[in-house]
Amino acid sequence: MIKNKLITSRDEDFAKWYTDIVKQAHLAMYSGVKGCIVFEPYSYAIWENMQKVLDTKFKELGHENVYMPMFIPESLLKKEGEHVKGFAPEVAWVTQGGSSPLDEKLCVRPTSETLFCEYYAKAVSSYRDLPKLCNQWCSVVRWEKNTRPFLRTREFLWQEGHTAHETAKEAEEETLRMLNVYKDLFENYLAIPVIVGKKTEKEKFAGAEYTLTVEALMYDGISLQSATSHYFGQKFSKPFDVKFLNRQNQLEHVYQSSWGTTSRMIGAVIMVHGDDNGLVLPPRIAPKQVVIVTIKNTEEVLAAAKKLEAELKEAGVRVFVDDSEKSAGFKFAEHEMKGVPVRIEIGPRDLTENKVTLARRDTNEKMDCTLGDVKNKTLTLLDDIHNNMFETALKRNQSKTYICKTMEQAKEIINNKPGFIRAMWCGDEECELKMKELRGMKSRCIPFKEEHLSDTCIVCGKKAKHEVYWGIQY
Amino acid sequence: MIKNKLITSRDEDFAKWYTDIVKQAHLAMYSGVKGCIVFEPYSYAIWENMQKVLDTKFKELGHENVYMPMFIPESLLKKEGEHVKGFAPEVAWVTQGGSSPLDEKLCVRPTSETLFCEYYAKAVSSYRDLPKLCNQWCSVVRWEKNTRPFLRTREFLWQEGHTAHETAKEAEEETLRMLNVYKDLFENYLAIPVIVGKKTEKEKFAGAEYTLTVEALMYDGISLQSATSHYFGQKFSKPFDVKFLNRQNQLEHVYQSSWGTTSRMIGAVIMVHGDDNGLVLPPRIAPKQVVIVTIKNTEEVLAAAKKLEAELKEAGVRVFVDDSEKSAGFKFAEHEMKGVPVRIEIGPRDLTENKVTLARRDTNEKMDCTLGDVKNKTLTLLDDIHNNMFETALKRNQSKTYICKTMEQAKEIINNKPGFIRAMWCGDEECELKMKELRGMKSRCIPFKEEHLSDTCIVCGKKAKHEVYWGIQY
Repeated sequence: MIKNKLITSRDEDFAKWYTDIVKQAHLAMYSGVKGCIVFEPYSYAIWENMQKVLDTKFKELGHENVYMPMFIPESLLKKEGEHVKGFAPEVAWVTQGGSSPLDEKLCVRPTSETLFCEYYAKAVSSYRDLPKLCNQWCSVVRWEKNTRPFLRTREFLWQEGHTAHETAKEAEEETLRMLNVYKDLFENYLAIPVIVGKKTEKEKFAGAEYTLTVEALMYDGISLQSATSHYFGQKFSKPFDVKFLNRQNQLEHVYQSSWGTTSRMIGAVIMVHGDDNGLVLPPRIAPKQVVIVTIKNTEEVLAAAKKLEAELKEAGVRVFVDDSEKSAGFKFAEHEMKGVPVRIEIGPRDLTENKVTLARRDTNEKMDCTLGDVKNKTLTLLDDIHNNMFETALKRNQSKTYICKTMEQAKEIINNKPGFIRAMWCGDEECELKMKELRGMKSRCIPFKEEHLSDTCIVCGKKAKHEVYWGIQY
Repeated sequence: MIKNKLITSRDEDFAKWYTDIVKQAHLAMYSGVKGCIVFEPYSYAIWENMQKVLDTKFKELGHENVYMPMFIPESLLKKEGEHVKGFAPEVAWVTQGGSSPLDEKLCVRPTSETLFCEYYAKAVSSYRDLPKLCNQWCSVVRWEKNTRPFLRTREFLWQEGHTAHETAKEAEEETLRMLNVYKDLFENYLAIPVIVGKKTEKEKFAGAEYTLTVEALMYDGISLQSATSHYFGQKFSKPFDVKFLNRQNQLEHVYQSSWGTTSRMIGAVIMVHGDDNGLVLPPRIAPKQVVIVTIKNTEEVLAAAKKLEAELKEAGVRVFVDDSEKSAGFKFAEHEMKGVPVRIEIGPRDLTENKVTLARRDTNEKMDCTLGDVKNKTLTLLDDIHNNMFETALKRNQSKTYICKTMEQAKEIINNKPGFIRAMWCGDEECELKMKELRGMKSRCIPFKEEHLSDTCIVCGKKAKHEVYWGIQY
C-alpha cells in the first residue's frame, strides 16, 4: 500500500497522524479561541448522520427534544454540592451583558442537570406527569487546559437526555436501556467494538448514584470514554425539590437518569479506523458511501456514470460522481483521504468490456464488476465493509487486552504496549490511585460480564471484589 | 364559540392572551435568567418541523451545514466597523474561564459573520473553491432589555447561512433566492402571508450593502420582521481579507451573502393564527396533525381508533389516539388549546352508524364522515385548513393595510387601528425619523412590487422616491 504523503504514518507518530487527518480530510480547523474548533462541512455531515441514528432511536423510545438556556446562574449551579465541585473549576463565566456588569455571574452550561431539574420542579406535580423523557442537542463548554480536535475541546457538540420517573426501578431500567442505545450505535453504525460496564465510585459523574459507560480502544491502545448513562436516584431531585404526588397520594421526590454522548465520537471513528491514506469511514455514517470516479470524461463514460449514480441513489445509497478534470490518481487519493467506503472506477476501456472496477476503502482491494451487477454488489459490499471494519477493530482490541495479576506485569504493559488491562480490584480508592501512578492509568469500568481472574486485588493483595478494565485515556 | 377559560380573550388583552397561550399550551417556561426561556417539547417539535423544511431546501440548493464556535474574541468582532457598532452594545461577555480571568474577553456570538469570514479566509484560495455555501443551526445571544417568549429573547434559536461567491451577480442572486425560500416557508408551510422587499439604509443589517426582508402582520396589526437575507458585497471580505485567485489569475475579494430566520417564527404562528381557545397550528408544521379522541373506551371504540390511527399513519399523517380516561369535553379543550388541526371523535353510537365526527380546529366546524372515508377526507381537510388559514390571514392583512397620503391620516390609523401603512417616501433618513415619532413606527420595507401611490413624500412633501410599508414592530 502506497502511503499518502500529506500525512504522517500512524505507526510513526500517532498524534501527528491524527491532526494531519483532521486537516487534510477537511474535518476541522482551529478558531481564534484556544480549544474551540470549526466543524467543517465534512465532519458536521458525519455528526448529522450520528444524530439521525440516535434521534430516531430516542424518539422511538418515547423521548422528546427540548431546548434549555445556555446560561446557568451561579446560585443554581451550586444547589447540588458534588455537582458544583465537579464542574465549577472548568466553566466559562459571563460577567457582563452589553456594557453593564451582571448582578450574578452566569456560567455557560457545562451540562444541564440543574436546568432540567428546575424545569421538572415546575412541570411535574403528579405521577400522571411521569415519566418525563427529555433530550436536548446543543453545545456545552468546559474550560479544559489540554485540548485536541473532537476528542477534547472547550466547546463541543453533544446530546444530553434527562429523565424523571415514579420509581427507582424505572429510572434504573432507563439508565441501562440508554446505555444499550449507545452500544448499538457504536457497534452497528460506527463499527467500533466497546466494553460496557459501571464506573467506580471515583470515576462516576459528579452527583450520580452510579455511572454506566461505553469504553472504546483506539488504534494506539489508548482508551476513550465514549458515552455515559447515569442513575441519579433522588440525588438531584431532593436539593432541587422535584416532587410528585404518588399513587399513594403522598409527596415523593422523582427518580432520575441522564445520558449523553458527544462529538468526540468523530475522533473515535478517526482513531479506530483511519490508516496511512487517511480516514476510513464506516459506511452507515459516511456522508458519501460511494464515489463514482470517471477515468476519462468521454461522453459514454459520463453517461454511464450518471446512470449508475441514479441507480444507486434509487437504492438508497449516498453516492456522487467525481467527473472533475483532475487525474484519476489524484481523485483516488482525495477520496481515500476522505474515507469514502466504496469507489467505482469507470473508464472507456471498462465500458467496452461492459464492466467497472470496485475498490473498497477498508482493505484497498479492487475487483471487476459487470455493469448490471453494480447495484447489488455495492449494497453487499457496504455491509461487508462494515462487518470487516468491526472485526478488524475487535481483533485488534483483543490483541491489546491483557490480563494482569501483578503490578509489575501492568507496568510493563502500560509502558510498552498500552491497551486495556484486566485486573482484579479490592474496591478501595487508594488502590485506584496507586494504579494511576502507572502513566496516569484509570479504571475504565467494572464490566457487566465480570470474570473471576484471581482472588486478590492487583494492588494491595487483599480480597478482590471486582474485575476492572484499566487504561490510559484520551 | 365557547371561550376557553384558561386564557384571556385576544381582543381584550392581546399581550396577556399571548403569554397565556405560551403557558397553557406548554410551549415555553421562563428560566432563572431574565429573557431566556425553556423550549418545552411542544414548541421544540414545531421548531424541528420548521427546521426540516428549511434544512431540506437548503441542502437541495447545495448548502452544507457547519458548526462555528460560540465564542468570538473581542478583537475579531471589532474588525468590521459598522458591524461591531451594531452588535457590541447588546452582547454577553465571557471574562473568566475556570478560576482565571481571560486575557481577552470573548463575546457569546450574537451572529457569526466574523467567524465565517475568518474560516473562509483560510478555506478559499481559488475561484475553484467557490461558491462556499454554508449554513449553521445554533443559538445566539443578544442582551435585550425588553423580552417576550419567542419574539424577543436574550438567547434564541436560529439558522444563519453564509455564502461566498466569485461575482457580485452570483452573491446577489443567492441573496434573493434565499429570501424566496423564507417566503415559501411562511406562505406554504406556516400559512402566513408576507410582504417581501428591501430594507431602507437606516434599517439594514449592520455591515450589509443591503438587506432583503420578509415582513408579516400579527392579529393585532403589529408587524414582525420574520426573516432577512443580506447582500454584503465585499464589505466583510475586505477587512477580513477573504481573497481568491480569479479566472484572470488576479487576487480578488469574495462577494458574500448571509440569511437567517429564528425561533420567533413560533411567536408568529401563535400571533397570526391563535384564537380564544388556544393555538391554531398550520397542518404542515403541526407536531400532531390529527388526534383521535375516544368518547367512551369500549373495546370496539378502542379497536376502531387504533385501526384509524394505523391507516392515517400509513398515509403519512402525524396522528395519535387520546384514549385517556378524562371526559370528552376536557379532551376536546386540551387539543384545541394545543391547536391540533383535525380532531376525530369516535364513540359507541358513532360506530353503530359506521361513522365518526371530524372537527377542524381553524373553523371549529364539525362534520360526519363514514369510516371508510376518513383517510381521504382527512388528507383533503389538512390542505383545506392550510389554505383557509392562509386566506383568513391574508384578508385580515388586507383589511389592516392602509394607503396614507398625509401624516394626519397615518397618525389617526396608527393610534386607533394599527397595521401596515403604505406611503410614499423621499428617501431621506430624517423623514424616517419623523415617522418614528408616531408610536415608534418604522419602515418595514420598500416592497419588490412598488406602486406609485402619489408624487410626494408623506412627511416632507418633496418628490417621492419609493413606496414604503411602515408599521409598529414586535
